[in-house]
Amino acid sequence: MTGDSKRRVAVLLDSSGESSASRATNAFVGALILLNVVAVVLETIDPVYARYRTVFRLFELLSIVVFVVEFALRFWASTARPGYEGPVLGRLRFLVNPYAVADLLAILPFVLGVAALDLRFIRVVRAFWFLRLFRESAVWQSRQRFVRVVRARRADLSIAVMLAVLVFFVSSGLLYYAERPAGTFASIPDAMWWAVITLTTVGYGDVVPVTLLGRLFAGLTALGGIGLFALPASILAAGYEDVSEPTRSADADAECPNCGYRLDDSE
Amino acid sequence: MTGDSKRRVAVLLDSSGESSASRATNAFVGALILLNVVAVVLETIDPVYARYRTVFRLFELLSIVVFVVEFALRFWASTARPGYEGPVLGRLRFLVNPYAVADLLAILPFVLGVAALDLRFIRVVRAFWFLRLFRESAVWQSRQRFVRVVRARRADLSIAVMLAVLVFFVSSGLLYYAERPAGTFASIPDAMWWAVITLTTVGYGDVVPVTLLGRLFAGLTALGGIGLFALPASILAAGYEDVSEPTRSADADAECPNCGYRLDDSE
Amino acid sequence: MTGDSKRRVAVLLDSSGESSASRATNAFVGALILLNVVAVVLETIDPVYARYRTVFRLFELLSIVVFVVEFALRFWASTARPGYEGPVLGRLRFLVNPYAVADLLAILPFVLGVAALDLRFIRVVRAFWFLRLFRESAVWQSRQRFVRVVRARRADLSIAVMLAVLVFFVSSGLLYYAERPAGTFASIPDAMWWAVITLTTVGYGDVVPVTLLGRLFAGLTALGGIGLFALPASILAAGYEDVSEPTRSADADAECPNCGYRLDDSE
Amino acid sequence: MTGDSKRRVAVLLDSSGESSASRATNAFVGALILLNVVAVVLETIDPVYARYRTVFRLFELLSIVVFVVEFALRFWASTARPGYEGPVLGRLRFLVNPYAVADLLAILPFVLGVAALDLRFIRVVRAFWFLRLFRESAVWQSRQRFVRVVRARRADLSIAVMLAVLVFFVSSGLLYYAERPAGTFASIPDAMWWAVITLTTVGYGDVVPVTLLGRLFAGLTALGGIGLFALPASILAAGYEDVSEPTRSADADAECPNCGYRLDDSE
Repeated sequence: MTGDSKRRVAVLLDSSGESSASRATNAFVGALILLNVVAVVLETIDPVYARYRTVFRLFELLSIVVFVVEFALRFWASTARPGYEGPVLGRLRFLVNPYAVADLLAILPFVLGVAALDLRFIRVVRAFWFLRLFRESAVWQSRQRFVRVVRARRADLSIAVMLAVLVFFVSSGLLYYAERPAGTFASIPDAMWWAVITLTTVGYGDVVPVTLLGRLFAGLTALGGIGLFALPASILAAGYEDVSEPTRSADADAECPNCGYRLDDSE
Repeated sequence: MTGDSKRRVAVLLDSSGESSASRATNAFVGALILLNVVAVVLETIDPVYARYRTVFRLFELLSIVVFVVEFALRFWASTARPGYEGPVLGRLRFLVNPYAVADLLAILPFVLGVAALDLRFIRVVRAFWFLRLFRESAVWQSRQRFVRVVRARRADLSIAVMLAVLVFFVSSGLLYYAERPAGTFASIPDAMWWAVITLTTVGYGDVVPVTLLGRLFAGLTALGGIGLFALPASILAAGYEDVSEPTRSADADAECPNCGYRLDDSE
Repeated sequence: MTGDSKRRVAVLLDSSGESSASRATNAFVGALILLNVVAVVLETIDPVYARYRTVFRLFELLSIVVFVVEFALRFWASTARPGYEGPVLGRLRFLVNPYAVADLLAILPFVLGVAALDLRFIRVVRAFWFLRLFRESAVWQSRQRFVRVVRARRADLSIAVMLAVLVFFVSSGLLYYAERPAGTFASIPDAMWWAVITLTTVGYGDVVPVTLLGRLFAGLTALGGIGLFALPASILAAGYEDVSEPTRSADADAECPNCGYRLDDSE
Repeated sequence: MTGDSKRRVAVLLDSSGESSASRATNAFVGALILLNVVAVVLETIDPVYARYRTVFRLFELLSIVVFVVEFALRFWASTARPGYEGPVLGRLRFLVNPYAVADLLAILPFVLGVAALDLRFIRVVRAFWFLRLFRESAVWQSRQRFVRVVRARRADLSIAVMLAVLVFFVSSGLLYYAERPAGTFASIPDAMWWAVITLTTVGYGDVVPVTLLGRLFAGLTALGGIGLFALPASILAAGYEDVSEPTRSADADAECPNCGYRLDDSE
């Protein structure tokens, strides 16, 4: 009896559920998440906040109530989902789930009544709720493809990352010592800020080398930044190429050249 | 009789028309569009405008007359083109055509006599008239190829876009709260401006994080910017690769030069 | 007799010549070009110029003499090279050759004795002499491959360029009008400077939009800048892929699957 | 006897050694290197240094002792490794090894007692010790693949580099002369700093052209910067594509599931 309603609730709140009731629930929660993100953004604009303070508070309270209820229901019904059986162990496993952690992190501050100014920081976490909106099947598939590409090219990508880390440390150190006479950087961590902004070719220009040696090293670092980019881009491109191969070869080698047997993928 | 002259006008003004009269008309209209773009640009230079004010006004008037006549003729003749039959429905369908909308948007302000200062804004729309110059067959084909690549890789590209949106929101929020003590950003929308300029690796440097935490998050955002770029580039590269496949396999598996055995994929 | 010495001179000065004398001559001229580039660079450093003024003048004079003699000899001997026959027509064709034009542009100012301060501008042209150093066969081959890739992908690349031009004009215009209240840009050409620096993701930050609308359009422009880059990169990648295909398919289909005939490319 | 202990020491200190003792030793040295990098970074933060001065000195001394002992042992045992036989020649060959050079450069200043302020510069070299941490087999393989890709595409990459060098020199020169009236650049080397920062699309904005001509050339340079990037990225992408080919074709042409006919490329 309870098990049955549990199962129904679990299905209803499952974001991949296909019944119209489940879809409506998910659409409602999704819209509420989006509206919350918009609210968090608008709240930080002083005149807007001053004017609509009560509206924001009310909307927040309402959202929290909905999210707490939704979370409580999912927590309660979690044991009815495959892989989460068992009243204690299953629930613990559910709580460790990244989506549940994101939910909790966003809800807790309010529930504990500690919605102090600095804790609002944690609301940003709610943006991760976006992820819940990303479960549409087509997207899911390409997400798996991305993971597959990264995994297949892990070794190549890791060497690119290592090279980047090496260039990052060496250029930070070299620039700090080269710019010492001019006092451009207060410390190596200060030079690291410069290095990451240069290597990614962002280049704010808030800290800029001024000595001859510093500029020489900085030029080389900037060139390294291009490599930092070109390498992973080309590795990923080759990876995506390989992943898209099966469809291609299926087109090309549709028939065995010896016996005429058709290599049909539908079979 | 009228239907015949209609057809002739429709053919004459059709930008893909191949008769020499049609080509001349299109070249003339194309040149006039280009000159108008140049005029819009030059007009904004104060000394130039002060000096040649009358020339600009005259040229504008003349262009408008030409464009209005051309548009009126095409509107009138549109019913003679396949897919736009019917005096009312066909013409409505013609007006919904994106090229017609761009034309209308550019002409209307002048026609209505409301060429007020702030409405000149709308003249920029005329730049879209460039699109009319892009109908050359080779270009058209590669445009279709681009659309095909994007469509085939839609799922992969959409996840890249989603990741970008997620990173954009999260980094805007994190930076706003991290930089609060220093008051770098007035609000989250302010931080969003910073985030888009950083994620695209443009990096103006007009707003720059100054706190330790802010710089840490900013560095990660800048690295995310590289990903934001590397991912779509590699997805598109793999997509273009696939599209160019047919020619390739046709070359490779053509025919054995010895026995004439055909490795044909058409069968 | 003269024809014979002409041929010998032509061979000697031919940058792709393979005799040791030809190589030595080319190495000498090449080194002189490089030294001239270095000299042009160093001359602009005031203290260096003040100190070594005479050395620079002497070196310049010496170089000019060598280059004039070399050019005169090549001009005289040009008729002995295939494709440049005929004392008048052949020589005219030689003068139209891009390398000859670069040579002339660099020599003329000195020869005419008009080495005035502002004409030194033209010396930069000498950097193009670098091109003469690029004729090594392996490099030449890959240069041809690059030309082939660009030509094969011309249609795709041209649409990318067109899109970039369209985005460039539209964003310049939109930004100018959007930033009007703030007076950020003096004119549309001023906004064009901003647009090119943003679309290439360079982002100096010397002119930066400040209005809400301006920042919105600027953000979209910056995103367009990524596309501006991702598109040609992926088109070129697919192009290079195709060019490298033959070797690949030769590896894969080395043998006809029907009769066992080997598809050897050496044959 | 000595030879035997030598071999044991050589194996113990070999970073690719697989015995648990060798692994422990390498992990210890690796951790010490990482801690040294952290120490070098932290030392430059004034308040941290002021407080923990003695700790830094002690840790430095300890590290140096360990590194000297490790280097001495490896130097002594080097003759037992294949390729480094002979007490004099083998040891010289060992000293020429890039890893040994990096080790020496990092140790020497301390050993010679000249750990003067400005020589601390050399400590940055220790970051290269990171390389020792990169010898894990999977990483090694992909490193070799990277080298293979670069080597296979050497000609294409070199022309990209040459184009970059040409654009770099020409744009530096043009900008210097174009900006002369405004005095933006003190000299061509000054303009070179600008050029490298623009071509890599970093764009600090510390030196920015202000004249019309200068901005025109600068815009073209920025566009060239995109090419500078797109070209090597696409060349590398095609290169990685080729390297990953064998696995692919092996997958595709494996065996007909009907008749067992093998499409083998090894044959």
